[in-house]
Amino acid sequence: MAGPFTTRRRVEFRDTDAAGIVHFSAFFLWMESAEHELLRTVGIPVVEANAGGPGVDASWPRVSAGCDYVNAVRFGDEVDVAVSVEKLGTSSVTYGFAFTHGAVPVAKGRVVAVRCLMRSGRRPEAVPIPDDIAARLTPYRSGA
Amino acid sequence: MAGPFTTRRRVEFRDTDAAGIVHFSAFFLWMESAEHELLRTVGIPVVEANAGGPGVDASWPRVSAGCDYVNAVRFGDEVDVAVSVEKLGTSSVTYGFAFTHGAVPVAKGRVVAVRCLMRSGRRPEAVPIPDDIAARLTPYRSGA
Amino acid sequence: MAGPFTTRRRVEFRDTDAAGIVHFSAFFLWMESAEHELLRTVGIPVVEANAGGPGVDASWPRVSAGCDYVNAVRFGDEVDVAVSVEKLGTSSVTYGFAFTHGAVPVAKGRVVAVRCLMRSGRRPEAVPIPDDIAARLTPYRSGA
Amino acid sequence: MAGPFTTRRRVEFRDTDAAGIVHFSAFFLWMESAEHELLRTVGIPVVEANAGGPGVDASWPRVSAGCDYVNAVRFGDEVDVAVSVEKLGTSSVTYGFAFTHGAVPVAKGRVVAVRCLMRSGRRPEAVPIPDDIAARLTPYRSGA
Repeated sequence: MAGPFTTRRRVEFRDTDAAGIVHFSAFFLWMESAEHELLRTVGIPVVEANAGGPGVDASWPRVSAGCDYVNAVRFGDEVDVAVSVEKLGTSSVTYGFAFTHGAVPVAKGRVVAVRCLMRSGRRPEAVPIPDDIAARLTPYRSGA
Repeated sequence: MAGPFTTRRRVEFRDTDAAGIVHFSAFFLWMESAEHELLRTVGIPVVEANAGGPGVDASWPRVSAGCDYVNAVRFGDEVDVAVSVEKLGTSSVTYGFAFTHGAVPVAKGRVVAVRCLMRSGRRPEAVPIPDDIAARLTPYRSGA
Repeated sequence: MAGPFTTRRRVEFRDTDAAGIVHFSAFFLWMESAEHELLRTVGIPVVEANAGGPGVDASWPRVSAGCDYVNAVRFGDEVDVAVSVEKLGTSSVTYGFAFTHGAVPVAKGRVVAVRCLMRSGRRPEAVPIPDDIAARLTPYRSGA
Repeated sequence: MAGPFTTRRRVEFRDTDAAGIVHFSAFFLWMESAEHELLRTVGIPVVEANAGGPGVDASWPRVSAGCDYVNAVRFGDEVDVAVSVEKLGTSSVTYGFAFTHGAVPVAKGRVVAVRCLMRSGRRPEAVPIPDDIAARLTPYRSGA
């Protein structure tokens, strides 16, 4: 049941480039925004203050991001974004993104984010995803 | 003597938009980069760690920024940026920026930055610009 | 009657910088988006194809943009944007923007856009704003 | 012989985000800039005017882009970028990018660009890469 989380955004002028179409990098911003919108919708804080003790927040740095482009979109176009959880690991979430404009496929992206404790000036430390967070993401698993 | 600090940058593809020219917002990024390059050149840290005591850094939030546009520039163009210090107040620096492409005037910008102590979760607190920092900026004053 | 056009947007992660707050340049993107949203709402095309003859579109290059910053906003904050038409000239529109976060004033911006015919490889040519476009903007004049 | 094309850039403030590090999307902008710098260096126009006849330019839309992140970089850091040509197909070039900060690996990226004729309002049409262009890229092939 469930299925992907869906959202929509309109192409803004700053998303375009001199080729007259959306710059390929804009899709990565849209992926992040859609991911955050999903997290907000299911009640998972993007940054969880003091999750690892006083002053140690938990967040989701990305270790990998990619996108394949099929059709261009232009200024003013409305783009539908479908987000699914392709894989739910111990510490990581792999999100899949399908971008469409009306019936036209536009792009497919993916992002791997890792649950980490963030200590100032230190490398992020990967930690297990708490059960209640995994439970909130589960309805969006591909094939779920 | 002295006169403005000068630097050059090439228009990158992401600086452009679907009108085929550099997006007006890019000039604000170029202003900040040129300002930081000037600071680096004269040995002023952009962020001065612990300047206001342990954990309290000093930095330069901007309170105002503006730009007037005269001629467009395009992908691949080289843009010269001349930075001068238009005004050196107790806590603030007003920078002026002249953008040219060859002999062609492109834009004129200005930014007012304020020397502030940055305390986490609090409003930046304006503090006087230390004398040695003011001295390093003085050669770039307009008319200096 | 009427008064400003209002819209709202949520601060996205890419809007922020290492100072933990929204980068000053983001406000210029928000101004442009709000302006376009206003134009769309009143039925004025942002780019009017062939307005000056075959292949000659009309658009609104900006000749000036500025912003004064009062309070910072952060990732996830909702920002209200009120757009008014401060001045309606023969060829130009001066937009004023007031940014607030709840009851807190955040910034005030302004943009001067000029109605132009865009010929490929030539400088934009300023032309009078057609009456029906001026009429659609009039309800948003400050004090209107 | 030869080996990757190398360039260096300094992290600008706008490249960072509220996590205090470079935003993951910035690497895609750096990839494109490094690719363009390589093309410029070997004398391949990024956009080749009228390559497909009057008004039909050739360019290099991307069909895929990805990045894996290993270590964060911060404002002011200098980042070395090594670009190699991983694969040279009939119409496509696969670029590989290695980002390092001093001796520290930062990220690895890849972009697949396709030689296309760009006709206004039509889908880009993939065309074979001309021999002289392929020859100019060959020295940068991985293992070359």
